[in-house]
Amino acid sequence: MSLSAPLRGVVPPVCTPLDSHGEVDTASLARLVDHLVDGGVHGLFALGSTSEVAYLTDEQRATVLETVVNAADGRVPVLAGVIDTTTARVVEHARAAAALGAQALVATAPFYTRTHEKEIAAHFRRLRASVDLPLFAYDIPVAVHSKLAPGLVRALAEDGTLAGLKDSSGDEGGLRRLIVELGGRDGRTQGPAPQFSVLTGSELTVDAALLAGVDGVVPGIGNVDPAGYVRLYEAARAGDWALAAKEQEQLVDLFAMVDVGPEADMGRSSSALGSFKAALQLLGIIECGDTAFPQIQLSAESVALVARRLRAAGLSPVR
Amino acid sequence: MSLSAPLRGVVPPVCTPLDSHGEVDTASLARLVDHLVDGGVHGLFALGSTSEVAYLTDEQRATVLETVVNAADGRVPVLAGVIDTTTARVVEHARAAAALGAQALVATAPFYTRTHEKEIAAHFRRLRASVDLPLFAYDIPVAVHSKLAPGLVRALAEDGTLAGLKDSSGDEGGLRRLIVELGGRDGRTQGPAPQFSVLTGSELTVDAALLAGVDGVVPGIGNVDPAGYVRLYEAARAGDWALAAKEQEQLVDLFAMVDVGPEADMGRSSSALGSFKAALQLLGIIECGDTAFPQIQLSAESVALVARRLRAAGLSPVR
Amino acid sequence: MSLSAPLRGVVPPVCTPLDSHGEVDTASLARLVDHLVDGGVHGLFALGSTSEVAYLTDEQRATVLETVVNAADGRVPVLAGVIDTTTARVVEHARAAAALGAQALVATAPFYTRTHEKEIAAHFRRLRASVDLPLFAYDIPVAVHSKLAPGLVRALAEDGTLAGLKDSSGDEGGLRRLIVELGGRDGRTQGPAPQFSVLTGSELTVDAALLAGVDGVVPGIGNVDPAGYVRLYEAARAGDWALAAKEQEQLVDLFAMVDVGPEADMGRSSSALGSFKAALQLLGIIECGDTAFPQIQLSAESVALVARRLRAAGLSPVR
Amino acid sequence: MSLSAPLRGVVPPVCTPLDSHGEVDTASLARLVDHLVDGGVHGLFALGSTSEVAYLTDEQRATVLETVVNAADGRVPVLAGVIDTTTARVVEHARAAAALGAQALVATAPFYTRTHEKEIAAHFRRLRASVDLPLFAYDIPVAVHSKLAPGLVRALAEDGTLAGLKDSSGDEGGLRRLIVELGGRDGRTQGPAPQFSVLTGSELTVDAALLAGVDGVVPGIGNVDPAGYVRLYEAARAGDWALAAKEQEQLVDLFAMVDVGPEADMGRSSSALGSFKAALQLLGIIECGDTAFPQIQLSAESVALVARRLRAAGLSPVR
Repeated sequence: MSLSAPLRGVVPPVCTPLDSHGEVDTASLARLVDHLVDGGVHGLFALGSTSEVAYLTDEQRATVLETVVNAADGRVPVLAGVIDTTTARVVEHARAAAALGAQALVATAPFYTRTHEKEIAAHFRRLRASVDLPLFAYDIPVAVHSKLAPGLVRALAEDGTLAGLKDSSGDEGGLRRLIVELGGRDGRTQGPAPQFSVLTGSELTVDAALLAGVDGVVPGIGNVDPAGYVRLYEAARAGDWALAAKEQEQLVDLFAMVDVGPEADMGRSSSALGSFKAALQLLGIIECGDTAFPQIQLSAESVALVARRLRAAGLSPVR
Repeated sequence: MSLSAPLRGVVPPVCTPLDSHGEVDTASLARLVDHLVDGGVHGLFALGSTSEVAYLTDEQRATVLETVVNAADGRVPVLAGVIDTTTARVVEHARAAAALGAQALVATAPFYTRTHEKEIAAHFRRLRASVDLPLFAYDIPVAVHSKLAPGLVRALAEDGTLAGLKDSSGDEGGLRRLIVELGGRDGRTQGPAPQFSVLTGSELTVDAALLAGVDGVVPGIGNVDPAGYVRLYEAARAGDWALAAKEQEQLVDLFAMVDVGPEADMGRSSSALGSFKAALQLLGIIECGDTAFPQIQLSAESVALVARRLRAAGLSPVR
Repeated sequence: MSLSAPLRGVVPPVCTPLDSHGEVDTASLARLVDHLVDGGVHGLFALGSTSEVAYLTDEQRATVLETVVNAADGRVPVLAGVIDTTTARVVEHARAAAALGAQALVATAPFYTRTHEKEIAAHFRRLRASVDLPLFAYDIPVAVHSKLAPGLVRALAEDGTLAGLKDSSGDEGGLRRLIVELGGRDGRTQGPAPQFSVLTGSELTVDAALLAGVDGVVPGIGNVDPAGYVRLYEAARAGDWALAAKEQEQLVDLFAMVDVGPEADMGRSSSALGSFKAALQLLGIIECGDTAFPQIQLSAESVALVARRLRAAGLSPVR
Repeated sequence: MSLSAPLRGVVPPVCTPLDSHGEVDTASLARLVDHLVDGGVHGLFALGSTSEVAYLTDEQRATVLETVVNAADGRVPVLAGVIDTTTARVVEHARAAAALGAQALVATAPFYTRTHEKEIAAHFRRLRASVDLPLFAYDIPVAVHSKLAPGLVRALAEDGTLAGLKDSSGDEGGLRRLIVELGGRDGRTQGPAPQFSVLTGSELTVDAALLAGVDGVVPGIGNVDPAGYVRLYEAARAGDWALAAKEQEQLVDLFAMVDVGPEADMGRSSSALGSFKAALQLLGIIECGDTAFPQIQLSAESVALVARRLRAAGLSPVR
């Protein structure tokens, strides 16, 4: 299937279930894909930060993407993260993703090295020229430690390099300016980039982002409650903003599951991804809630806290 | 007049007009207050960051606050920033502000020094105990380089230390969590902090923030177009979110006036405050658009750009 | 007394003893000055960060400076910190310091506001023009959150604005480049800025800094062991670098006193300044080891740890 | 050859010459290795940040390491960087490096993801257990955006996980504390980690670092002037600190070659590595001075500036 433009709706960053040896549990992953598609999501983002892509070997990445594409089975498009330090390495991932059937690619700015706006522009242009798939820029300063300049994104939208932006920068004001400047968001006829899709990763303010004009959302906790985000999205599309806000508030409550254990005990990746995976295990969707080494695993007490959050949200643990 | 609780609506951070010698131009400041009150605002925030408080001597600060209180003349409440490095210095400003008739105080965490959550809590409690006025915490990491922890704000809300929060952190997700956790935002009857007022300083996403449940907004560019923000606020109060979003988009367009000159030429304070003051001068509200030394003044070319932005927004320059 | 140029040697940032009410204990402060001058130091830096200047009211600052100047009694020069957010406020402190007999001023870049290299240059030039005392730039990014650009410092050295630099940036490589570029450090005859004094605040690498060509050091823990730093300085001046390194290592051991309590309990200002003041109290030099509100006070256990460090260094507590 | 412990001396991070298609130029790389060994260096660090490791595909990395090991031909030990986001990926690089004949491995903390001290400790322990080669921790916050805690390094030194530290943190004070705490640096008999090697990447303060007790240096610009660093190291070993400082100053002068072009034009990686490679090309050691895509190439004007710096240092360009 090809990607309709612009991509709109709920596109969760699919978690990667692992077994107790740290290997990809493809059966659990296929069940998770069904859980998400059954929940009504509009696309799947495999190999994003939430998938623990940074922890997966190339072989594991291939296993994940193949499993997600097969399980999705054309029901929704699959975007593939191609996360690596610089262009040559990212191009290799992009070619692999294309061969495995991804419908679009999601790439960050170069990281580890010290980069520059001109270099980032060349990076995205080379990626687009190297692999013939729609390309999304992934703006995630917390991971790559640089922010995509709005003017750069606009230029790459207008010249057709980018099909969209996945914004996890947390800079909602800057994103609003970008959306206004891209223009023509409603009719998409006059605007300079009518096919350009803006997706937010700010999962706690999705109602607000949709009101501001984003096309969709990539919510990590959407792994746990995809239907909740779909209800939120549909309410917003229908212009029922009060309902959208109410749905968002319930998801904010659910999100409190990430506050497991004191910060002294583990990193934010371990606690956030660990709680999502614990929830998926409690819901019977995946076999094992472990996060990839060397992340710290949740204590039994933390898992119990996750279970309480699920119950408070009306999502019943089966284990 | 005393402050109704919780404070709601549009509360602009009042600019401080200066003459060409860098002294406070009280006649212009009084006209600016009239411009804002005539625009329908619900309160005034004097001596905030936008007022260039960090550039004003104690004597100048007193002149500013006295002028704003007198010009407001009880029509709307006046909040006074009490900005200084640590508690003892802030208490002195707080006492001065109380004597000059401020109806509430707005204080940041300690800065310049390396501080800590426990110390910040003691700081706000001592301030509240020292001067009997409602106290707002001013969360502005870009200036003080620490972020108020949500748990700290909640504790200080619940024990009555704080009457509200002025959030300029840009962390909209964290703010959403705080609002949900404060609870009872609509009826204000069950919540733990029913009198607590949350004001956002994120002036480009006010529709979104109101949808999320904030009580009001402190927009710097509200100096230029107070009526625009009041229309946005009223649309949101009426539940007309599409209209609120449209009003916000127009204000985002207007805000582009801050992009004056290349970044190589001046700091972000100079360019943002300089453009606001240039706009106020062009509109005939203040005499002189200079910002305080050592900020760099706008070039004539930049002022012309500001004038174009005003005209595009239907605000006609008179000079 | 006037300041000889360039200033060289050990110039401790004098702690400010407070009584249990938080007021300046002038008798203790005078004893501390004697302790330092008796230890052989070459100058005194009053109202620096280590003096808790950010916590002192203007009246307290005046008391401190007056006490230090009187106690020094012309035996060594007194530099005064003039720490405030921007130029107009700093000029007021500078005038007060001049009136109280300071021999030189030490000022940071503007803080709280967002500034710019051109604005920082104008700031220092205005300060120099406003008060006729030698002016040192205080490069302390941890407090003001901007770094003085080496090119800026060089320009201000060469045009006579600055008499010196107090470098607390921790960027030893950048400082080395600056020293090499200033040139003529030995004979001071050919160099472009022969009178310019470079003082480091990096108290754990003073031997290294002197080898690199700095003129002197401003060590916080020099309050506790001024004679140790004087021995280190004299060894370096004599070219006995092995001895200098040995003296430095002993001071590094002593410095471990700042590791009091877990970071969870207090800020770095509280722990570092609290341990210095506890040491001074244990040595019988000051009456009370309290730091200014809202800093957290050291526990008895932490004070015992400080005492052990003193004994290990051969400095005998008398209390 | 096996690595003697502790490793001491000058260990340059070998640049990776590329041809105009961006492929590894093995002939130039072999000449560069000869240039370095002939210059007297004590080891080679292949696949470090200066080698543009973040820009090289796995196949290119293998080509580089194989070429360096072969060219070194047992004359000096070869350390291999194994740079990737997290443990599983780094283990793959480590196995490849071992198979290609590296004598030691150099690994950073996890990056891209948000990590934690406990996770970093597990990461290094797993690496050490997975591949039987001496392991160096690479502390480079500018690239990985976390700092290795001194207590963590000490623990991993004492339990034998780490054979050494390559410190590019720029925190010279913290490094000094670590060295003092590791103890027994001279005789290496009493200390808790007598075999532990501390190498600094702070190439502008090597004299100072050697005085402080580091074992060696990994200087990027040592590619250009290895003999200069060897003279500096030998002077320090001989206790002739004045000579060491003089050698360092000349290298500081040479280092000014990195100031090519305004910052507006390229990233710091492009300018620093570009100038080193331009110098190597001018000296006739490598064929082509290009840096890896998407780094910006130096202009002819910038190359001319590099040539002037070479001449000023007595290094004669042959092109």
